[in-house]
Amino acid sequence: MEQRISLITLGVADVARAKAFYQQLGWQGQEVEETVFFQAGGLAVVLWGRDKLADDAGIEELGTCAMTLAQNVRSRAEVDEVIATAAAAGATVTKPARETFYGGYAGYFADPDGHLWEIAWNPGFTLAEDGSLTVPDFNALD
Amino acid sequence: MEQRISLITLGVADVARAKAFYQQLGWQGQEVEETVFFQAGGLAVVLWGRDKLADDAGIEELGTCAMTLAQNVRSRAEVDEVIATAAAAGATVTKPARETFYGGYAGYFADPDGHLWEIAWNPGFTLAEDGSLTVPDFNALD
Repeated sequence: MEQRISLITLGVADVARAKAFYQQLGWQGQEVEETVFFQAGGLAVVLWGRDKLADDAGIEELGTCAMTLAQNVRSRAEVDEVIATAAAAGATVTKPARETFYGGYAGYFADPDGHLWEIAWNPGFTLAEDGSLTVPDFNALD
Repeated sequence: MEQRISLITLGVADVARAKAFYQQLGWQGQEVEETVFFQAGGLAVVLWGRDKLADDAGIEELGTCAMTLAQNVRSRAEVDEVIATAAAAGATVTKPARETFYGGYAGYFADPDGHLWEIAWNPGFTLAEDGSLTVPDFNALD
């Protein structure tokens, strides 16, 4: 597993309220289907409804102050490899890798303290050679 | 507030166990005073005892799956500015900015969903022009 982060997702009770807060801090992002993406250096900070995030991660409920980490990789096979490596190291696979609604392939594991990692192959998000991630221009995709 | 992350700190029950897990994933880091730093692209992933992290953040207890985000800035004044901006936007300041044990200056706020942010000026951690952070070689500092 490479030593990098692609996305940090903050589970929020109210996406509009959370978006307004980060905008007041001066952050600029893009909202797509009640999900807000902020480019933050070589990764993305994402605001997403807590229930949707918990469901996506394959867990019943997020704890307080819930965030998840994600690493985007370069192929379906790499998703399987990283999740197998994590499981062998003692992680709990909360959601086995499967096809995603956006045409990718992803799964989740929890580390020994319950920190959730999504490992994803997402053909819509560009990964640079150095592993940095660029949020696409969603309007340009319409 | 700039749109970037400097550190992601995972609160863990047992630093040695958590370190062993990430090492089994192939990650290489440095341990300093029961704190493990992994360079991950332009930021650092940090493993730190849950109790110490909660205490540092000025809160009684971390929730499950607890992580905090940090943004390192370039001056004491910028710490104060960012925390004041966040407070004006509705954040709860959980720890007003103060001098730190490592010779820096830092404070914490919680966003409307309770996600904790540390804003820190740390003269020991290099910030590049683009905001990316490089973990120092701690051995070289001895």
